[in-house]
This record gives sequence, structure tokens and C-alpha cells, in this order.
Amino acid sequence: MNNFTYSIPTKVHFGKGQIVHLKELRESGNKVLLVYGGGSIKKNGIYDRAVGLLKEAGLEIFELSGVEPNPKIESVRKGVALCQEHEIDMTLAIGGGSVIDCAKVIAAGVRYDGDPWDLVIDPKKIRGALPIYSVLTLAATGSEMDVFAVISDMDKNEKWGTSSDYLKPRMSVLDPEYTYSVSAKQTSAGTADIMSHILESYFTNVEHADVQARFAEGLLKICIENGPKALADPRDYDARANLMWASSMAINGIISGGAEVEWCVHPMEHELSAFYDITHGEGLAILTPHWMEFALNDSTAGKFADYGRNVWGITETDDITAAKEAVKCTRNFFKQMNLPSTLSEVGIDDKYFEVMADKAEKGCKGSFVPLTAADIIKIYEASK
Amino acid sequence: MNNFTYSIPTKVHFGKGQIVHLKELRESGNKVLLVYGGGSIKKNGIYDRAVGLLKEAGLEIFELSGVEPNPKIESVRKGVALCQEHEIDMTLAIGGGSVIDCAKVIAAGVRYDGDPWDLVIDPKKIRGALPIYSVLTLAATGSEMDVFAVISDMDKNEKWGTSSDYLKPRMSVLDPEYTYSVSAKQTSAGTADIMSHILESYFTNVEHADVQARFAEGLLKICIENGPKALADPRDYDARANLMWASSMAINGIISGGAEVEWCVHPMEHELSAFYDITHGEGLAILTPHWMEFALNDSTAGKFADYGRNVWGITETDDITAAKEAVKCTRNFFKQMNLPSTLSEVGIDDKYFEVMADKAEKGCKGSFVPLTAADIIKIYEASK
Repeated sequence: MNNFTYSIPTKVHFGKGQIVHLKELRESGNKVLLVYGGGSIKKNGIYDRAVGLLKEAGLEIFELSGVEPNPKIESVRKGVALCQEHEIDMTLAIGGGSVIDCAKVIAAGVRYDGDPWDLVIDPKKIRGALPIYSVLTLAATGSEMDVFAVISDMDKNEKWGTSSDYLKPRMSVLDPEYTYSVSAKQTSAGTADIMSHILESYFTNVEHADVQARFAEGLLKICIENGPKALADPRDYDARANLMWASSMAINGIISGGAEVEWCVHPMEHELSAFYDITHGEGLAILTPHWMEFALNDSTAGKFADYGRNVWGITETDDITAAKEAVKCTRNFFKQMNLPSTLSEVGIDDKYFEVMADKAEKGCKGSFVPLTAADIIKIYEASK
Repeated sequence: MNNFTYSIPTKVHFGKGQIVHLKELRESGNKVLLVYGGGSIKKNGIYDRAVGLLKEAGLEIFELSGVEPNPKIESVRKGVALCQEHEIDMTLAIGGGSVIDCAKVIAAGVRYDGDPWDLVIDPKKIRGALPIYSVLTLAATGSEMDVFAVISDMDKNEKWGTSSDYLKPRMSVLDPEYTYSVSAKQTSAGTADIMSHILESYFTNVEHADVQARFAEGLLKICIENGPKALADPRDYDARANLMWASSMAINGIISGGAEVEWCVHPMEHELSAFYDITHGEGLAILTPHWMEFALNDSTAGKFADYGRNVWGITETDDITAAKEAVKCTRNFFKQMNLPSTLSEVGIDDKYFEVMADKAEKGCKGSFVPLTAADIIKIYEASK
């Protein structure tokens, strides 16, 4: 196990009706920037409930709406300008990871002198942030409890993740009932996203980070059991609750601290989203089994076999055989969740493989099996 | 899954050499009460290293040494008096759970007008505390990251656990190398203590708190795998590291939040320690298999079978048979760890069974299988 520092200061109020805790925002000042997306929160009543509670607590509300599914730097810039103009004290995201990511970089942008895109491409420039709050409506990115934010500049086909301790939300409300209305497509993509976060940390070369590995395996089992349940019955509270809590635990540092590794499927997928604006979780579901096949070799078979035995209950004793079965289980599970399995299904051909691979390579050098641009092209090719 | 609030503000610096972070105590003031036990930290060099770092950071050090394995209220009173006399800003425990518990109640006692025993028997009276820091030297109680403290008044044969958010340490240093010198007896007792913390939360009537259950199972597997390794080679870094991190994770709220249940083996054991001053983990190892046998019935068999299958790898499909095998595995594991299996081995006869059971009953009413005083006597009798 590596040395690490555990620090998860985010307070999470988890469960039915926990939105009442929005009154606690008053502790951070009296002006809040409410950040949200396309307006679904107005249809399902969450907007009215939140605004009512904030007003009751004496907060003055400013709004930034229309944040995109792959949040754009233009939205961040708008939010920063609003905060500066009105001397706003904190940001409150109500939505999924995209909205929360946007609210995070706005909060950091207010404490930075230059253009907020600088903070996306250079995390070290994040030297402070307004207090960040969130009400989660989609179990996927884990942004509600982590250090990360992913922002896109579509003009440049750039999508980058930044990270900083300053981006950890101060408090997040996780009410599983708020995910009842999540579509089947987004439920599946969210589940794939959670699983990818876990797998990216699980496949590490750090040895004997066993607490982290056992937790990762447990979280994967949660996804495998509850993803299909949530598809079958979108109002299955316990399925939604376990997926939601798994989404936070997958990426808040618990399974990665002490088992550090560079991620690689995410960087490869970010290029797909940056060039084609596809749903992130779908891109991950397409790439993951192909990455596994590429990464599986004699020296990695043991780890893949662990994955097969401890997550999928594979009893095969030969490592290579168990590992191959595990990849098959992964692929079949994504199919069972009605996720796409080829790039062509989401409208991607080989036109930009080279340029995307060149860009993705940067983030894949220190991964479980380090990838060159040529390797990444092979994985893209296999995914066609 | 129940509603819950997740809040673990303790920062943990985990790994080799992390004691250098003691310099951060300067953030909380300039006078520190250093709390420790019988002086083993002077023999193994930790004392000198800590004092050097604190002095380098410009801290003035006051000392309370000689804290007992079952820490006594008299030590707490001494510590509170020292803090008040010298206007001390924070407490720093260097030791195992007993020392940390003592430092916690001292910190709360300074912010309380009456006798600190009041805080032990009535947690609601804890309304504040000095900042609490710890350097852990024994993997067992989890006090380094939790809300609890257990203090004894031997004159009255009273041993009670109190709890408060104010008792969460601000920062803890967990260096697995500091546990290399822990004796075989204490390594075994510590492992039993960690396992008992996990089992007390795992056996709950709350349904579908599955993230919590999978994490609990993972932690139990860590103990089962690494306890014997640490006995076989006390300097096995990864075994010590995994046990240490499991000790914190077992009781910091991650596996209990949303799966709340009253503990019952701990209250029964606390009476043993209060009357006979035995090693806490040994008492737990004696009682746990007998509690399991008492609690196992047609309606609880499913949960015990889950435990057997997911922790011990039992493949038996009949629940009752799988459950009985699981109890047997638990008993055999404690024997393998050279832990006592009967009360007579630790010098306890039936003299106080009734009075101990009457006192323990208070804490066992809301447990997985609620226990009356008569039930508790049966469990003590079976453990003779």
C-alpha cells in the first residue's frame, strides 16, 4: 500500500427529504448562485422546493441555467461574471455531474484573476474557491463528493478534467427519489460511468492496497446488482439508493488513496466526447471491454482473474481463462444494460482516431498498462 | 437503506514517516497536551521523534503519561486540570485507543463546567472540545477517526462509551511501522476488536444498505487474511497497513450510516472489563461466537448465511447449515489467533453474571436480536 492522505470534508445528507438541509447554506453567506441544466428540475418540483427553502433561510438567489450535458467553458465564464457582478457568496448546483462540475469551476474562477479555462488545463492555478454545494439528481460522476470537474471547449475540441481540494463540495444532498425520473439511457450510462471510475482505480500496479481493492469489488457488485433493478423499476428506492451512494464512493478517494494509478479509459473517452459530444458513460461502456482485452496479458492476468472471481463469482482456477471470462461478463453486462458496444452505434468513424489518440496519450502513460498513441488507436479500431 | 448523514472531517496521514505532519498542530495554537500510556513510546523512539517535531514547530508541550489500558476517569480529570491550569490549546494522543479516548474526553472536559464523568454517562452534555490529534500505535478501537470514547470508573465497576461529533480527531497519523512492536496478544485482541466493530454494524435489521454490507464484508476479509500474517511476521508492512486502515474504516461511520443498529456484544463485554479489567478484544472474542449461536434462528439465518458465503466463501446453499458453518469459522479463526474462548481462561466465574447482565441489558435492547438480562446471562453461561 502507498502512503496517502485521506481527507473527505464534504458533509453528505443522504436519503428521502434531505433537501431540507439547504437551509444550512446560510452559514456561508446570503447570496447564492443556483446552477442548473435544461430545466427538468422545474418539471419535477425540485426547483420550487429548493428555492422555497433558500428563501426561507433568507438567501438571495441568482441563477445560471442551461448548463450543457458536457458543460462548456462559456457557461463557466457566464457564472463567474454573475458572481463577480453581484458579489455572490457560494454556488449551489442542482443536477448531475455536469452541472456540479460547472458550479465547481465557477466557484474557483471567482477566486482567480484570469480566464477560467486556465484552471481547467492547469489545476495548480486553482488557489481557492467559493463554498460549493450540490443537490444530486443523477448517479454517475461522483462530483458531489470529489475533487474533479470536467469542462469542454467545443470550439477547440478540448475536454479536460481538472482537480483540486478546493473543488470538494462543502455539503451535498443525495436523495435517491430525485433519480426516479432519470431515463433508462441515462441510468445505464450512469452505471457504466460509476463502474469505470471503480475499474480505473482497481486496475493498479500498487500491491496490497487490499482495503481499497475489497471496497472496489463491493462497489462493482452494487452496480451489477442494482443497475438492472433500476432499469426494470425506475422507482426502486433501494436500487436507486445503492447506485447513488456507490457513485460517490467510487471516486471520493476511498478506493484510490494508497493505490494510485493514472486512469486511461477516461482520457480515451474524453476525446470521443470532445470530438462528437456523445454521452460519456456510453463511450466508457464501448471502450472498457476493448481496453480490458488489450491490457490482458500473462503479467496482468492475475489481477483480471481477481476481478472475475471476487466480482463476478467466477470459479475457474486458471488465471488467463478466468480473466477472459471476466471480460466477457463485463461486455455482457453492458449489453444487458442496453449500452452501445461499438463506436459506429454512436456515429463515430475512424476519421479522428489519430488526432484523438495523440491527445489521449498524455493521460495514459502511467496507467496499469501504459498506452502509447498507437495502442490507443488499436483500442479505437477494435471498438469500431 | 435508512437516511443518514456522512461526515468524517478527520484528516488521516497514512503511511511510513507521516509523523512529520505533526507540524500542522501549530494551526490550532501553541500549547499542546501530549497524552500517552506506560512509556513504550519512549523505548521505540516515537516519543523523541514527536517531541522533536512539535518543538521544531514552536509548540510548548505539557504531558499526561501513564494512561491505563482501560482508561480511568481519574486520568481524564488530571488532564482537564492540566489544560485549565496552563491554558492548553489542543490534545495530542500518542498510543492506542485507550490513550486516544482519554485525550478526547480531556478535550471535551475542558469545555465543560462540571465533572468530566458527566460527559461519559451523558453524551448530550458534550457541547464542545479542544482540537484533538492522534498518532496511532495499535490497530483496534478506531478511535483515531471516530466519535467514540470509552472511560472506566473502577471504584464503581462502571465502563461506558460516550460519543459526540466534537470527539472526532482533527488529524490522525497512521504509520503501520509503529505497530511492528505490538505484542502477539495485543495484535490478536486488536483484530478481534476490529472484527467485532464490523459485525456489530453488519448484523442489522435495516434492509438493503448494501454498500455498507459489501464494505463490511470486505473489511472482515481483510482481518481474516492479515491477522494471521501479522502474527506470523510482526514486521509485515502490508499486513499491518491493511489491519490499521481496516480498524479506522470499521467504525468511522462508513459501514454504519444508513444501516443503524444498537450494538450488543460490546455492552456485554464492557461489563466484563469493568468488573475484571480484562483485555477488551479478548472478551469480545470469547462472547462473539456464543452471541452468534444465541442469535441464530430461522428468521436470522439468511443474514448469517450471507456472512458465511460472502466472508468465509461457504458454498452451502441451505441457510441454516451455511450459518452454522459461519459461526464455526468465526470460532476457529479466533482460536487460530490464539485468543481465549472461555471466560474461565481470563479468570471470570459466574459471581457477577446477574449484576453484569442487568447493566448490559440497557445497551442491547435495539440490537439485531434484542437481548434481555436473562438472554445475556445465557450467553455468559455458554461462555463459561
